[in-house]
Amino acid sequence: MKKLKQLILLPLLFGSLYASEANDIAFQALFTVNNIWILISAFLVFIMHLGFATLESGLTQAKNTVNILFKNISIIAIGILTYALCGFNLMYPGNFNGFFGFAGLGISTPEGAAGLIEYADGTYTYFTDFIFQAMFAATAATIVSGAVAERIKISSFLIFSTVYVALIYPIVGSWTWGAGWLDARGFHDFAGSTLVHSVGGWAALVGAYTLGPRLGKYSRKGKIKPILGHNMPLATIGVMLLWFGWYGFNGGSVLSADPGAVSFVFVTTTLSAAAGVIGAMLTSWFISKKPDLSMILNGSLAGLVGITAGADCISPINSVIVGFAAGILVVFSVIQFDKMKIDDPVGAISVHLVCGIWGTLAVGIFSPDYQLGTQLTGVFAYGIFCFVSANIIFQIVKLSMGMRVTEEEEIIGLDISEHDMEAYAGFQIFTIE
Amino acid sequence: MKKLKQLILLPLLFGSLYASEANDIAFQALFTVNNIWILISAFLVFIMHLGFATLESGLTQAKNTVNILFKNISIIAIGILTYALCGFNLMYPGNFNGFFGFAGLGISTPEGAAGLIEYADGTYTYFTDFIFQAMFAATAATIVSGAVAERIKISSFLIFSTVYVALIYPIVGSWTWGAGWLDARGFHDFAGSTLVHSVGGWAALVGAYTLGPRLGKYSRKGKIKPILGHNMPLATIGVMLLWFGWYGFNGGSVLSADPGAVSFVFVTTTLSAAAGVIGAMLTSWFISKKPDLSMILNGSLAGLVGITAGADCISPINSVIVGFAAGILVVFSVIQFDKMKIDDPVGAISVHLVCGIWGTLAVGIFSPDYQLGTQLTGVFAYGIFCFVSANIIFQIVKLSMGMRVTEEEEIIGLDISEHDMEAYAGFQIFTIE
Amino acid sequence: MKKLKQLILLPLLFGSLYASEANDIAFQALFTVNNIWILISAFLVFIMHLGFATLESGLTQAKNTVNILFKNISIIAIGILTYALCGFNLMYPGNFNGFFGFAGLGISTPEGAAGLIEYADGTYTYFTDFIFQAMFAATAATIVSGAVAERIKISSFLIFSTVYVALIYPIVGSWTWGAGWLDARGFHDFAGSTLVHSVGGWAALVGAYTLGPRLGKYSRKGKIKPILGHNMPLATIGVMLLWFGWYGFNGGSVLSADPGAVSFVFVTTTLSAAAGVIGAMLTSWFISKKPDLSMILNGSLAGLVGITAGADCISPINSVIVGFAAGILVVFSVIQFDKMKIDDPVGAISVHLVCGIWGTLAVGIFSPDYQLGTQLTGVFAYGIFCFVSANIIFQIVKLSMGMRVTEEEEIIGLDISEHDMEAYAGFQIFTIE
Repeated sequence: MKKLKQLILLPLLFGSLYASEANDIAFQALFTVNNIWILISAFLVFIMHLGFATLESGLTQAKNTVNILFKNISIIAIGILTYALCGFNLMYPGNFNGFFGFAGLGISTPEGAAGLIEYADGTYTYFTDFIFQAMFAATAATIVSGAVAERIKISSFLIFSTVYVALIYPIVGSWTWGAGWLDARGFHDFAGSTLVHSVGGWAALVGAYTLGPRLGKYSRKGKIKPILGHNMPLATIGVMLLWFGWYGFNGGSVLSADPGAVSFVFVTTTLSAAAGVIGAMLTSWFISKKPDLSMILNGSLAGLVGITAGADCISPINSVIVGFAAGILVVFSVIQFDKMKIDDPVGAISVHLVCGIWGTLAVGIFSPDYQLGTQLTGVFAYGIFCFVSANIIFQIVKLSMGMRVTEEEEIIGLDISEHDMEAYAGFQIFTIE
Repeated sequence: MKKLKQLILLPLLFGSLYASEANDIAFQALFTVNNIWILISAFLVFIMHLGFATLESGLTQAKNTVNILFKNISIIAIGILTYALCGFNLMYPGNFNGFFGFAGLGISTPEGAAGLIEYADGTYTYFTDFIFQAMFAATAATIVSGAVAERIKISSFLIFSTVYVALIYPIVGSWTWGAGWLDARGFHDFAGSTLVHSVGGWAALVGAYTLGPRLGKYSRKGKIKPILGHNMPLATIGVMLLWFGWYGFNGGSVLSADPGAVSFVFVTTTLSAAAGVIGAMLTSWFISKKPDLSMILNGSLAGLVGITAGADCISPINSVIVGFAAGILVVFSVIQFDKMKIDDPVGAISVHLVCGIWGTLAVGIFSPDYQLGTQLTGVFAYGIFCFVSANIIFQIVKLSMGMRVTEEEEIIGLDISEHDMEAYAGFQIFTIE
Repeated sequence: MKKLKQLILLPLLFGSLYASEANDIAFQALFTVNNIWILISAFLVFIMHLGFATLESGLTQAKNTVNILFKNISIIAIGILTYALCGFNLMYPGNFNGFFGFAGLGISTPEGAAGLIEYADGTYTYFTDFIFQAMFAATAATIVSGAVAERIKISSFLIFSTVYVALIYPIVGSWTWGAGWLDARGFHDFAGSTLVHSVGGWAALVGAYTLGPRLGKYSRKGKIKPILGHNMPLATIGVMLLWFGWYGFNGGSVLSADPGAVSFVFVTTTLSAAAGVIGAMLTSWFISKKPDLSMILNGSLAGLVGITAGADCISPINSVIVGFAAGILVVFSVIQFDKMKIDDPVGAISVHLVCGIWGTLAVGIFSPDYQLGTQLTGVFAYGIFCFVSANIIFQIVKLSMGMRVTEEEEIIGLDISEHDMEAYAGFQIFTIE
């Protein structure tokens, strides 16, 4: 009988041991693939910054190119460093938990502090969470850059951006993604139509309005004079890199590599972007009788911004509708802002603010799980807070150090006046009258 | 005895439960990594479209840049949307199963319809399959764009492309990848030397021939006047992005993340591209006595197209031979087409059609598992069908709305005449006589 | 009793079988995700070559653009092919094991030779190891390209690079990564601050010094005349692609997808790059009173090179210090080399050699696990060997075929004199006096 008992214990022991080891490896494998996908998404979001830099410089004048590139490169660095300093802690979790608190700042191996690996139930590590979110942070400020281009002082822009990305972005982000009060009410913004794009878009609107239009853009008699972008291949590179990076922006927001969810998000994101191109193409072709490249570029971005809030909960057929409508919307919006004499050189307000709002509302319209009323509440809450705070920061900067370059500097171009450098040394470039 | 039985049942139960749970997690982990790799491959193939757009605009004249960018961006949108509309259903499986039938079009969560996740034996989801294949679809039409550049009407091109990508590409694709009649005969085309590149290449040939050469390209006395590309950095960006994206094009065609197979494909693809550079470098240096940048760019693409059919079944050493031969071939082919007065501004026919055929035959020559005769059959079948159908569509478009811009429009450039927009506003650009 | 025994054997058998199958799948899943991450890293390192190509051509004159692009594309092909021919075998393992020996060169399926899949304890395959390392190899030679730009003969450069990348790089690489003598002493260079960047940097120094400065760079009276880069958007694209690719360069050097280690490396790499931007921005703004774009571009690269040796063992807060110091260092270094009349058109020596040394020493300063003395030993060993061997190869090439183009060729530009091709046909470009 004793022998028998041993005989029984044997399989108990071995079977469990085997199974337990297999379990550990299996768990590790799933953890590893989920984590690596979010890291991959992080570098995809990173390259979106190159997309913004090239899009914005392509759509503006050659004489302001160095300035735009400088702004976009420095804002990445500022965004990442301030996010480590305070943004990450301010944003998660939603209830205010002090400004500073990046865990593991002083450890020299990832295992150096308990719980940083087994963070998030073994889906991703603390470091992965930080780096993915940090890449997002800088985008909000970058959106502003386009709308205020060709006339803002570089030092003023850097100070505004630093404050906006270090404080405003994480505070309002915590409301939803930090499990804050809007999340509790059932507001849904999957990857940031509002939390990233509108947050940037409101500041872009405030900036463009406060600065006033570029010299010569609107004549005394109310005529609108287009100021042409100097490099359309550069702008196209920008848009395509943004679309490319969006697979990480939306795809990584699943916060795991779950096959069903990530592939669904890829499909809705792609269909909406494609429909945005067609929507903007048909609308602008109909209005101006010519197929307009800059409009289809903005159309694809409009579709992408539009689907960002609901990429996880809007059906493929409806994502085509969302994108198509965003593509139409962006064309009319660009025209409308021009009529209102709000000078936005790259159409950032139309793409990010207008289509960001549209995308947030679309969740309430097309998804059975969310309420249009709640989505509207979110849009208003973000709008009021961002509009007011952006205004306050802009006014403080304006009063203390000035916001706009002098007329003479604007005419010479910011590359020479602010940076003493040309973007295209040796090329014969003339200013278009 | 009863107690004893319980004692025995315990390990049975727990051991199996443990094991079963481990099994589930393990299966899920493998499913997740296979699926995410194909999604990664999908965005790599996506960025190839930026590669085509920049390569083609870099190798043509500054005055036609907006036009080329416009064509390449809109063709992505058209390719993706028509693939959702009918292409995907037409292509898989091979036997005709009606035009329309995108499953799960109306569901707002990936779990919304049974079988869309557990598609393909748990290797990838339905949505993953669609998005990877949809990214492929548009490439065939993009290949045509380069060969017909600088003289085709934008509206005519868009209509031709839409029909070709929506109908012809999926129908002929089904013959092999849809388990159709050529697949049954043992024809092998791993990632599309024929199914993508030659299919696009045949239409490129038809287009270039039907349109006729650009004004001034061939003088009355039979002299060939080179029309120089306007932006070599842009062309280089294009080629490198294409090479970069090819890791998804070929790597994703494994249809799983199997370590042996994917890494093998990476090695053969890379060696062939590198050998294509050297092959084209030596050949063109020998012929023209100068190291020719545009030839080594085309050489790398030639090597990539050449290995695409057999990247999974040609040995590393033979992949060097395939690529080297493709690099030589592309140089002679470019020269030959020029002698035949078939004007292909970017060398698309030489790269995609000629090297596509070479790569397809190379499978029969270098792989022990496939027959040269069968490969030849495939090349002929695709050639005849694509050549005839491309001709029919071109002729219908030509007769109904015209295919070529007027002489005056061609001289002014398509950017102004078709789009009323300049690619490089402010730059002093002259037309080379 | 017999029945009982069977009853006992049942769970033993089934439990184990279940567990064993689960174990196999779990192991396969972990293998697959580790392997695919290194392949992903390989294509990220690949795109760094486009980064180098665009950065170098952007920072030099328009008339030498085709030449730089040609060098950078051909060096990739040369690097990959020579690495297959002899580099891979020379480098691993450290003890010399003959020149040639690429396993599986002749097999036409990955399973064709035993042990190529179950290589590296099932973390990655033989082919994965090769392709990741091959992508690294070419970078060393590419670094040289920038320092010798605008005056080196194309044929001489190609021969120098081929020898350097085929022999010197793998030999010195084996000392550390091939488990050679420096590895045995405890020298640590995680991803190549020394093994890649300094190895390239030493040859860059030898090249720039041996060739002498570009015409007109330093006047008789000792004044320094800046020769401006012709395309700052191109340079910015280059830097951002390098930063992007660095996630594979450093992230892949973990040699697995281990969640803790890879995410830690992502964080240190990113923080150091960001701090490099700020360090260079403040330093150059302070010195020249203007925010300097080319300095913040070099600052980010300085931060990246600086953290590369210790990305796995330097804490996040210290990685900020490493990057910030690198950003300061690179500005002073660029100025210093100019004073010494060593003409390095793109700052390659400062970025790769100076910051490579700094990063290698930083491991000894900031990581508790490594000794500063040992790190210094490594720096000296690599310095002496690379400096001497680069000198020998350069002198042999110089004596046998000449190293520098003629004065006339340099004035016309290498694009016309060496390649008979313009980079920007149609654009009005003047030479800055």
